[in-house]
Amino acid sequence: MAKRTIIEDTLTNIPWEDKPDGCKDVIWRSERNPIIPRDLLPNSNSIFNSAVVPYKDGFAGVFRCDDKRREMRIHAGFSEDGVNWNINEEPIKFICDDEEIGDFEYAYDPRVCFIEDRYYVTWCNGYHGPTIGMAYTYDFKEFHQIENAFLPYNRNGVLFPRKINGEYAMLSRPSDTGHTPFGDIFVSFSKDMDYWGKHRHVMSTRGSWQSTKIGAGPIPIETKEGWLVFYHGVLTSCNGYVYHFGAALLDLDEPWKVIARTEPYLLSPQKLYECVGDVPNVVFPCAALTDAETGRIAIYYGAADTVTCLAFTQVDELIDFMKKNSKL
Amino acid sequence: MAKRTIIEDTLTNIPWEDKPDGCKDVIWRSERNPIIPRDLLPNSNSIFNSAVVPYKDGFAGVFRCDDKRREMRIHAGFSEDGVNWNINEEPIKFICDDEEIGDFEYAYDPRVCFIEDRYYVTWCNGYHGPTIGMAYTYDFKEFHQIENAFLPYNRNGVLFPRKINGEYAMLSRPSDTGHTPFGDIFVSFSKDMDYWGKHRHVMSTRGSWQSTKIGAGPIPIETKEGWLVFYHGVLTSCNGYVYHFGAALLDLDEPWKVIARTEPYLLSPQKLYECVGDVPNVVFPCAALTDAETGRIAIYYGAADTVTCLAFTQVDELIDFMKKNSKL
Amino acid sequence: MAKRTIIEDTLTNIPWEDKPDGCKDVIWRSERNPIIPRDLLPNSNSIFNSAVVPYKDGFAGVFRCDDKRREMRIHAGFSEDGVNWNINEEPIKFICDDEEIGDFEYAYDPRVCFIEDRYYVTWCNGYHGPTIGMAYTYDFKEFHQIENAFLPYNRNGVLFPRKINGEYAMLSRPSDTGHTPFGDIFVSFSKDMDYWGKHRHVMSTRGSWQSTKIGAGPIPIETKEGWLVFYHGVLTSCNGYVYHFGAALLDLDEPWKVIARTEPYLLSPQKLYECVGDVPNVVFPCAALTDAETGRIAIYYGAADTVTCLAFTQVDELIDFMKKNSKL
Amino acid sequence: MAKRTIIEDTLTNIPWEDKPDGCKDVIWRSERNPIIPRDLLPNSNSIFNSAVVPYKDGFAGVFRCDDKRREMRIHAGFSEDGVNWNINEEPIKFICDDEEIGDFEYAYDPRVCFIEDRYYVTWCNGYHGPTIGMAYTYDFKEFHQIENAFLPYNRNGVLFPRKINGEYAMLSRPSDTGHTPFGDIFVSFSKDMDYWGKHRHVMSTRGSWQSTKIGAGPIPIETKEGWLVFYHGVLTSCNGYVYHFGAALLDLDEPWKVIARTEPYLLSPQKLYECVGDVPNVVFPCAALTDAETGRIAIYYGAADTVTCLAFTQVDELIDFMKKNSKL
Amino acid sequence: MAKRTIIEDTLTNIPWEDKPDGCKDVIWRSERNPIIPRDLLPNSNSIFNSAVVPYKDGFAGVFRCDDKRREMRIHAGFSEDGVNWNINEEPIKFICDDEEIGDFEYAYDPRVCFIEDRYYVTWCNGYHGPTIGMAYTYDFKEFHQIENAFLPYNRNGVLFPRKINGEYAMLSRPSDTGHTPFGDIFVSFSKDMDYWGKHRHVMSTRGSWQSTKIGAGPIPIETKEGWLVFYHGVLTSCNGYVYHFGAALLDLDEPWKVIARTEPYLLSPQKLYECVGDVPNVVFPCAALTDAETGRIAIYYGAADTVTCLAFTQVDELIDFMKKNSKL
Amino acid sequence: MAKRTIIEDTLTNIPWEDKPDGCKDVIWRSERNPIIPRDLLPNSNSIFNSAVVPYKDGFAGVFRCDDKRREMRIHAGFSEDGVNWNINEEPIKFICDDEEIGDFEYAYDPRVCFIEDRYYVTWCNGYHGPTIGMAYTYDFKEFHQIENAFLPYNRNGVLFPRKINGEYAMLSRPSDTGHTPFGDIFVSFSKDMDYWGKHRHVMSTRGSWQSTKIGAGPIPIETKEGWLVFYHGVLTSCNGYVYHFGAALLDLDEPWKVIARTEPYLLSPQKLYECVGDVPNVVFPCAALTDAETGRIAIYYGAADTVTCLAFTQVDELIDFMKKNSKL
Repeated sequence: MAKRTIIEDTLTNIPWEDKPDGCKDVIWRSERNPIIPRDLLPNSNSIFNSAVVPYKDGFAGVFRCDDKRREMRIHAGFSEDGVNWNINEEPIKFICDDEEIGDFEYAYDPRVCFIEDRYYVTWCNGYHGPTIGMAYTYDFKEFHQIENAFLPYNRNGVLFPRKINGEYAMLSRPSDTGHTPFGDIFVSFSKDMDYWGKHRHVMSTRGSWQSTKIGAGPIPIETKEGWLVFYHGVLTSCNGYVYHFGAALLDLDEPWKVIARTEPYLLSPQKLYECVGDVPNVVFPCAALTDAETGRIAIYYGAADTVTCLAFTQVDELIDFMKKNSKL
Repeated sequence: MAKRTIIEDTLTNIPWEDKPDGCKDVIWRSERNPIIPRDLLPNSNSIFNSAVVPYKDGFAGVFRCDDKRREMRIHAGFSEDGVNWNINEEPIKFICDDEEIGDFEYAYDPRVCFIEDRYYVTWCNGYHGPTIGMAYTYDFKEFHQIENAFLPYNRNGVLFPRKINGEYAMLSRPSDTGHTPFGDIFVSFSKDMDYWGKHRHVMSTRGSWQSTKIGAGPIPIETKEGWLVFYHGVLTSCNGYVYHFGAALLDLDEPWKVIARTEPYLLSPQKLYECVGDVPNVVFPCAALTDAETGRIAIYYGAADTVTCLAFTQVDELIDFMKKNSKL
Repeated sequence: MAKRTIIEDTLTNIPWEDKPDGCKDVIWRSERNPIIPRDLLPNSNSIFNSAVVPYKDGFAGVFRCDDKRREMRIHAGFSEDGVNWNINEEPIKFICDDEEIGDFEYAYDPRVCFIEDRYYVTWCNGYHGPTIGMAYTYDFKEFHQIENAFLPYNRNGVLFPRKINGEYAMLSRPSDTGHTPFGDIFVSFSKDMDYWGKHRHVMSTRGSWQSTKIGAGPIPIETKEGWLVFYHGVLTSCNGYVYHFGAALLDLDEPWKVIARTEPYLLSPQKLYECVGDVPNVVFPCAALTDAETGRIAIYYGAADTVTCLAFTQVDELIDFMKKNSKL
Repeated sequence: MAKRTIIEDTLTNIPWEDKPDGCKDVIWRSERNPIIPRDLLPNSNSIFNSAVVPYKDGFAGVFRCDDKRREMRIHAGFSEDGVNWNINEEPIKFICDDEEIGDFEYAYDPRVCFIEDRYYVTWCNGYHGPTIGMAYTYDFKEFHQIENAFLPYNRNGVLFPRKINGEYAMLSRPSDTGHTPFGDIFVSFSKDMDYWGKHRHVMSTRGSWQSTKIGAGPIPIETKEGWLVFYHGVLTSCNGYVYHFGAALLDLDEPWKVIARTEPYLLSPQKLYECVGDVPNVVFPCAALTDAETGRIAIYYGAADTVTCLAFTQVDELIDFMKKNSKL
Repeated sequence: MAKRTIIEDTLTNIPWEDKPDGCKDVIWRSERNPIIPRDLLPNSNSIFNSAVVPYKDGFAGVFRCDDKRREMRIHAGFSEDGVNWNINEEPIKFICDDEEIGDFEYAYDPRVCFIEDRYYVTWCNGYHGPTIGMAYTYDFKEFHQIENAFLPYNRNGVLFPRKINGEYAMLSRPSDTGHTPFGDIFVSFSKDMDYWGKHRHVMSTRGSWQSTKIGAGPIPIETKEGWLVFYHGVLTSCNGYVYHFGAALLDLDEPWKVIARTEPYLLSPQKLYECVGDVPNVVFPCAALTDAETGRIAIYYGAADTVTCLAFTQVDELIDFMKKNSKL
Repeated sequence: MAKRTIIEDTLTNIPWEDKPDGCKDVIWRSERNPIIPRDLLPNSNSIFNSAVVPYKDGFAGVFRCDDKRREMRIHAGFSEDGVNWNINEEPIKFICDDEEIGDFEYAYDPRVCFIEDRYYVTWCNGYHGPTIGMAYTYDFKEFHQIENAFLPYNRNGVLFPRKINGEYAMLSRPSDTGHTPFGDIFVSFSKDMDYWGKHRHVMSTRGSWQSTKIGAGPIPIETKEGWLVFYHGVLTSCNGYVYHFGAALLDLDEPWKVIARTEPYLLSPQKLYECVGDVPNVVFPCAALTDAETGRIAIYYGAADTVTCLAFTQVDELIDFMKKNSKL
């Protein structure tokens, strides 16, 4: 059934847990959360907001590991089951011809997207302010850095997994130099991954849980109903920001057109590991694994800017929920 | 004894717990806290800052239930014991002739006050900004909305349970459009619940736990010593607001005159359910049940803007404490 | 002709200047501007934002005179021609029975409105924050202070010159405790000038010259087309606030309904005396004199929070302009 | 002599005034300032920050005309002498196939750049925030709008007058959604004017007059010493922003490399028409006319966000000054 | 007569202008204002907030000259008449053994005080933030820098002209790193000009013209009534800061005790050269010349942070005014 | 061995816990944390940021105890083992001749330093803003208050335990009146503990965990490698401040020269008692006990501005770590 929904290969070894009895929510957390503790590496302060993909017989990923200097770096890692990870102690050293681009100040919140023949990594890159850094790898050992996609100031650059109308496409969230009290999602296009244009506005902030800013999370999942995009939304309480996440469906050919958008959030910070940590009250999804056959989706999300967690949903149930609870 | 203090009918089935051995505080928490979990309703994100009154053989109440859109709504509910509640899944639908008033944007932080023959509900009502919404009910099924008491921007409108010098009286806390970094308590009067005037300043903010803003909580309790008003007070730390609560005694006839005011707080956020949640570090009282015979008082308060809790005190002990620890 | 438009007595000695040749604007400035210099009184720092009415054979008024302590006070004054003024050196001392109300902290931005048998003065009154102070006089010598109309925080309280549907009506602009970076116009009603209710939202801020806040100016002028209200609108540049003014037509019976509203401003700070002074870039209208016979209107406005000025318009021309340039 | 410096055609009818006797500054103002008054158009509130180029026997230009709604629009205009201008009363109506792009919210601070066979106009374009709008024209009558160059939020997009290493190049100043208290200059490249990439950082803010933000002004002037770029720099005083301008020389082939940069400003707001107006204390250059033969440069700049002015310099003298007063 | 008031030598050639006929103010401006234009030096952007003393047969001074980099520097200068000044084109180069202290980042707002055998200069000195720099000179040619008096962050350090109870004394205004929205005046003592202690609070901010911050101006003038201190006071309007000045009398032996303090200001920015310039609406006194014989006082003050001006008063008249208009 | 590093007497009964097996960190927490609960005293809201020293056969200390008014006070206390404390219920009453100094508004964050013959206490003292209060005691019963060391606004005054070059020395962190979003460490000198001068800058804020402000913690420990200073560093997240701590080595004779400074933090808030409390996410060291013989160091630190905790390190291991992980 679900195969009819997700347009993608089948991933049999997805790290899956069935919905707990009595749970009425469309998304449920892993009982193994947090699956990656903050101190998995000897020098790590926190490991969160990380991206994983199927790789060979198992999984590979790029992880945000803030070290004890609280410098933000991204590391490569591997796993057989998607839950237990070996993360390299050293950050990724990008191969880059142009020092001006290659000597960036920080790297965080990576996403990984397989397109055609390679894995593209996008991340928030410190080049005179945050912008979207880009690289590709074939093996998660050698990473080739290419041009930053955009001018600063930008965050949450998320590639689509295939060309749309012959062009690469990327979601992003233009920002400012600091904690950015605003933020909409836009889409941009490119013929060559170097020059980007045809920028279109996709979604604005809106009341309540997504009133301060929003940003795309995992690589969009192609379904027969449209591109399924999980995105975070931020509310400003009198004690700071609260990060939730929801989902939207974008038109397959004109992805700046929104077909559905969850009016309620899908997940909000409620567990102790989501509410207490370096940044209280954060759930922040960065990757999703899908099994087209069963419609299973496993979502990796950072919690409290401190640890990495897993949540699960099933695509048909989710899209049904989205249609019933959509407000454009 | 205590009967001599509280001027009110006796409520024998008050949800009471004796003070724990060794506790030296004048207020103590319920061991059943939080008595209402955030997810009591299928769609609730949080249930807190809620108001209850004796009703028939048990209790009725109006509850702030933020749903998973994080829209703020108020719901009616019923209970036999004041601790276990049946809350309606649907928000209150007010009967109102005038669309201009009836189509409000949000409703939160309700109070319920029985006067003469009916129950009045006041709440923070979204009419081009927050102001004091008003309605009445006889049965907690049909609610008749009347005019907003004041111009925006206002919060924490709390009615007195009887006319004073022939006029209805209400405490309120003029505010601004946002998180309001200031706020004193005022009292206003009305002959008809429609037109309000004779506004008088009651209490200002003051150092430490009540230095940023203050706001009345439960319906004032008439005692021989004066109106007993629990009120919250907010301190601004470098990590945001901290909400405590204390109490004041107001003159029975000229309620803008303060007789006593606790220099120390009565309760501050110290339990995990008060410190961790959608808004960390909040205790916020909205209702109190009293038994004139024994002097017992049960205070309902919201914790961390997430759950509903109970705390207890005894009126003579409390007033004695207030007199010894008062600073006007 | 114009008599058909303004519904009011005729004022033959209105201080009038014909429109200069070549002027294409619907409003033009007096060549005698500023008509009241900042130092007309020995101790005055500035005289501005002031209200005048026809009185006996000439005119009387209430003037905002900030003294050299920069304390804000209101003074009474008289004039034969509306241009040359004798202003009392001493501020108005209000007769008030209730010290709590009578001992206010400051008074500024007065308006004067004749209703039935007396002149009502409203002003921004310092009672634990700014609110709308109220008084009446028969002779501009004795002023009787009555209750503040509203709770703080409020400014720009402007009475209608007659009852509407049997009730007094007042426009106001709810505010905060400081320079207030927001502000819409509301209308409230009263049966007795003491208790106010039935608050309705009239106009919101809107893009450009009126994007930060708006506030009613002179007493509304009754015309066959509706209540003619001049109001100021504030834009926030990178160098602070800029105050312009425009006009609106409100429904005669339901004055919260807007019939027309100037999309362009009518006057903006362009003259040196409007751009340079204690608060650069301010034109702020507080009063208007009208001659029903000719349709002439003379508008008194404060300039740069420093001096008092005059501008002129003709009602038919103005309303025609408003209709052609209205955006609701 | 000067011909050896500016690499460009000769413009004999440049609107020139010789340096006044005794003037020791490298830049001097026109005695005819402001050359364009704020009210040149019947509906204009202000005309400033405008761009002119040689066109046929005279000059054409694109002008920022804020109307009396204070809406920001750009208008085309023509002049025989570069000083007296006929500006169209109606804003430019762009021809654009794509409504999504063509229906922008505002347009301001235009620049005009002749490249190859046509005139390109860039401006600050309101598309879900400020970004760089682009169009081209052959005749200043028909303007063809193309894609916005960048994602929001951006201002001060300034094209180079020829391809560099086979690519079009543009300076810009990434911004935020408001008055932007930061801002560096970057350069981006394009093969087709549609897709932009290879973003490089050019210049940061620096102490004193250019400490808050900087932004390129007129189209860079190609000289044998490098690209001559006039740019504005903003200082934040306790009374808001002060806009000055200075100049830089950029490498001809790698224009992100700065060869010289004036440590002192070249012009600061000192004249009444620069200090008093809608935004006090602004000089903001948007265009320059050059005569290669004589080395004369006429700079058009906005003053006080209200009027348009002219200043003059001579290229050899200027570059000599820049070298002696450079701090990289 | 006046000789009985000022305790000091007589200065016969004080630059004096009699009070204009009809002037009722206790302080009046020079008709030659501004006496020092902003461009007196070839590279000066502005010359203001400057200090002068009698020296030999004429006068010497230390001047704040911001150059066209808008770097803040202090320059020495000489004058025969106190009105026409020769200011050195080069800033003062201090002789200082300790590089750590001698290599400061900026210097502004100097004061000069003759004590015992030499002239002490104090200024706002950039040493990891603003603090009070100190130096002495015998001849205004060689300046010997000594230790900074205080830790950052401090401004407006003003020495008393003689020891008090055997110790040197200095007023100052502790500040923050930026435009400092607060500020009281304190006094500190020293036995050796190197180590300072016994810090006492002198005056707080207070309503209206002195509500944001205050700071001492010229060297205190010893009178029989106490130390006469002119000080500036800042009000925050919605368009930024407004700087006025007033005066206080401090106890001769315990100068932290205030005897009198002007409730009204003495001078506020009203002239075009005070209202328009780099910082609109500033009058800022830094020096005063006195003639004990006649009681004449000439006050040098900066206007609009751009030019230097003169105002005059007579000591008996001033002290009489202060006593009648004092509010402690 | 270690005796060779710490230059100090040996403290045999230091409250010590060996490093847990498998712990790779150079600092480890006590398993008894929090050693002092928030409610140790009947009226205490919290007990934290406290200072202890060896005293007689055990230990004495000065403790920050905020009471339930949330007034900040310091109390004396005694302990036999350094872990279990008897704290006086009453705050310290200082003996002080000068009321002006002795009547301070609040006292918090004490440090205690034995010099020569007595114990000096320094604390953040409320004298018209926060500054460094000072007192000495011989017996922790009588405390003699002396002059405040500095002008406001200052915090974290920390004495060195012996004279340096014949002068007393103190570290401090100049601040502002509020939560201070900046702050470097300076050192000052005194001959007599009354007058302070020769102020030198020691360390600035720097990226990441110490980017907002830094402040010295315990009394510097004299080692052969230099003065060992633990200091806190603050990062600003979107949910407020996060307090970590690290360490620096300062030159023994010129303590403004930094020899080593930990690029990573040593401890960050990770335990529930550090992350949840009155101020979430705070570890704040105020005292250290050292055993020269073994090199053991026990660090007392406040957690979450609520409770008092212990952590341990060994000096040789620590200094080795600091050298390997230093960034100046």
